[in-house]
Amino acid sequence: MTSQDKFEGWVAQDASAIEGKMQWTTYEPKPFEETDIEMEVSHCGICGSDLHTLRSGWGPSDYPLVVGHEIIGRATRVGKDVEDIKIGDRVGIGAQSGSCLHCKRCDNGLEPHCSNKSTNTYNDTWPNGGKSYGGYAKRWRGSGAFAFKIPDEIPSETAAPLLCGGLTVYSPLVQNGAGPGKRVGIVGLGGLGHFAVLFAKALKCDKVVVISRSSSKKADALKMGADDFIATDEDPDWATKNADSLDLLISTISASFAIEQYLTLLDVKGTLIQVGAPEDTLPPLHAFQLIFKRLKLGGSLIGGRQEAKDMLQLAAKSKLKAWTQVVPMKDANKAIVDMEKGKARYRYVLTN
Amino acid sequence: MTSQDKFEGWVAQDASAIEGKMQWTTYEPKPFEETDIEMEVSHCGICGSDLHTLRSGWGPSDYPLVVGHEIIGRATRVGKDVEDIKIGDRVGIGAQSGSCLHCKRCDNGLEPHCSNKSTNTYNDTWPNGGKSYGGYAKRWRGSGAFAFKIPDEIPSETAAPLLCGGLTVYSPLVQNGAGPGKRVGIVGLGGLGHFAVLFAKALKCDKVVVISRSSSKKADALKMGADDFIATDEDPDWATKNADSLDLLISTISASFAIEQYLTLLDVKGTLIQVGAPEDTLPPLHAFQLIFKRLKLGGSLIGGRQEAKDMLQLAAKSKLKAWTQVVPMKDANKAIVDMEKGKARYRYVLTN
Repeated sequence: MTSQDKFEGWVAQDASAIEGKMQWTTYEPKPFEETDIEMEVSHCGICGSDLHTLRSGWGPSDYPLVVGHEIIGRATRVGKDVEDIKIGDRVGIGAQSGSCLHCKRCDNGLEPHCSNKSTNTYNDTWPNGGKSYGGYAKRWRGSGAFAFKIPDEIPSETAAPLLCGGLTVYSPLVQNGAGPGKRVGIVGLGGLGHFAVLFAKALKCDKVVVISRSSSKKADALKMGADDFIATDEDPDWATKNADSLDLLISTISASFAIEQYLTLLDVKGTLIQVGAPEDTLPPLHAFQLIFKRLKLGGSLIGGRQEAKDMLQLAAKSKLKAWTQVVPMKDANKAIVDMEKGKARYRYVLTN
Repeated sequence: MTSQDKFEGWVAQDASAIEGKMQWTTYEPKPFEETDIEMEVSHCGICGSDLHTLRSGWGPSDYPLVVGHEIIGRATRVGKDVEDIKIGDRVGIGAQSGSCLHCKRCDNGLEPHCSNKSTNTYNDTWPNGGKSYGGYAKRWRGSGAFAFKIPDEIPSETAAPLLCGGLTVYSPLVQNGAGPGKRVGIVGLGGLGHFAVLFAKALKCDKVVVISRSSSKKADALKMGADDFIATDEDPDWATKNADSLDLLISTISASFAIEQYLTLLDVKGTLIQVGAPEDTLPPLHAFQLIFKRLKLGGSLIGGRQEAKDMLQLAAKSKLKAWTQVVPMKDANKAIVDMEKGKARYRYVLTN
């Protein structure tokens, strides 16, 4: 191993990292393969998944780890088997950076559900045995197949959080018909929710409504383009007053929520898609409520490669601009603590 | 009121009717309107809803009542405002026999979800104040807008149960893409389940699998055309052994069931539609299970008028033949008791 095979970044040694105790140190990236690229990280968004993983919230994490999967930077090394990317290109990496690329699901643009081996951008192991490390770092190395060229129109601080946060809501919006003629509700206005509002508008939905506990974010929601805002803690009759008013609900919240009231908001044949991942079970549900209005309740993970490319095109064309707070990489520990406290408006982006 | 305005049929006076205590007596049909037809009932299927309603299982029923909403007979009187039906036509009536016909939902073929007034074929009240009475009777009277002409190719004993049982499964099959390339599972092999198998085959699905507790109905399922059969009580590993093997599940059972195991059967982007109506809440569910495979859980009621017509065309074209047991109308009390005991193979049809 040569010295250039040591990377530097914010390493979490155990679950205490979530308290702002990541350590800036070196670690060994995966052995380079000819299908890989290497990049100098310029920007990395802070995603809710980073926090869950730092504290082992979704099961024990594989420490030491480096989180961050909304990564933008210039390609500095490109394996000879990588297509489409040249040294110097500005590229982005999202939550997934590897899959088999030849199973039926991969063929159908469902790479996140690869039947063989999907590799997460951090807290995972590559097929060649190396650990996957994320973007709270100086450099990133991994498969070029999941690196997307970023259209010039998109600033890096917007592009970074698009790669996970954006895609996570873009995919279920598009897959569930968001567009002209559709009325869409977004539950929760955090990093994901704010992208959902921006994309629902970019997709030209008839109406976009934000549903939040208090009205503290109402002004922001309207500035993002939302047509209406429902504050559930401020009106006990919020559900019945807005009954049958929406075709699609995207729920971005991880906390348990009163699912039957949300279903009340949906018109006949409406769909509620859960993208936030509550650690508990969903509240009990009567089949009757689904039956009488032909409703559907679903979930959605991230999105496939083609969807990521389509999303970037739409973001470029519609001049979509994320609401971000840029933070120097050196302040990553403070930023995750602030994120945990709910201070993000609406996405922190670390920069080198 | 003239003497011809008294109808005769099996009247339930209270919830004891479910024990085989319906009484053959007279009752007063709704006042005739020019949008109505009247028919001599030749056949009436016995639907699970009849039993639920007889015993006030879905809330208090409006006794006295006459159940039966799978009705076939010849039109004997046709109001002058009725289109398409002539005296002597063989027509069928399903679970719904009235709606406003001018709201957006009615315009879109979603008459069961009419925004104004939908009228059930029994245990309901017509807009003109008359009670709605069903088909365990000599005659039936009601709106001609929900009376469907029966194609000559369909025998009446098949046509009758198609109007509710058939439509209830045909609609979610078609609305969820059942056809070539799709693998469909049918949960429960009763009246609804048997129609679901017949229609999934008529729609040329790639694979049709019946899932039942025991293998007692396996031979029947295969004769109906099912390609495979899973007996859940006979193999504790039934779900994992058949994981990711289906695209669509139609659950026809009203009892509570292990929903997470059924979701295991679904491949990525699969859908489970509940058409049976359990009185309890569904078992608790982890959002993760929906998220990781992008699954959907939905419900479906009956179907609209255009769907009913499409279904009858498909049944005629594919020479679909229901598995029925024809029972003389005089033996209706015995038939409902037998139905309650689960003896139907797979639909009792009363005949005058």
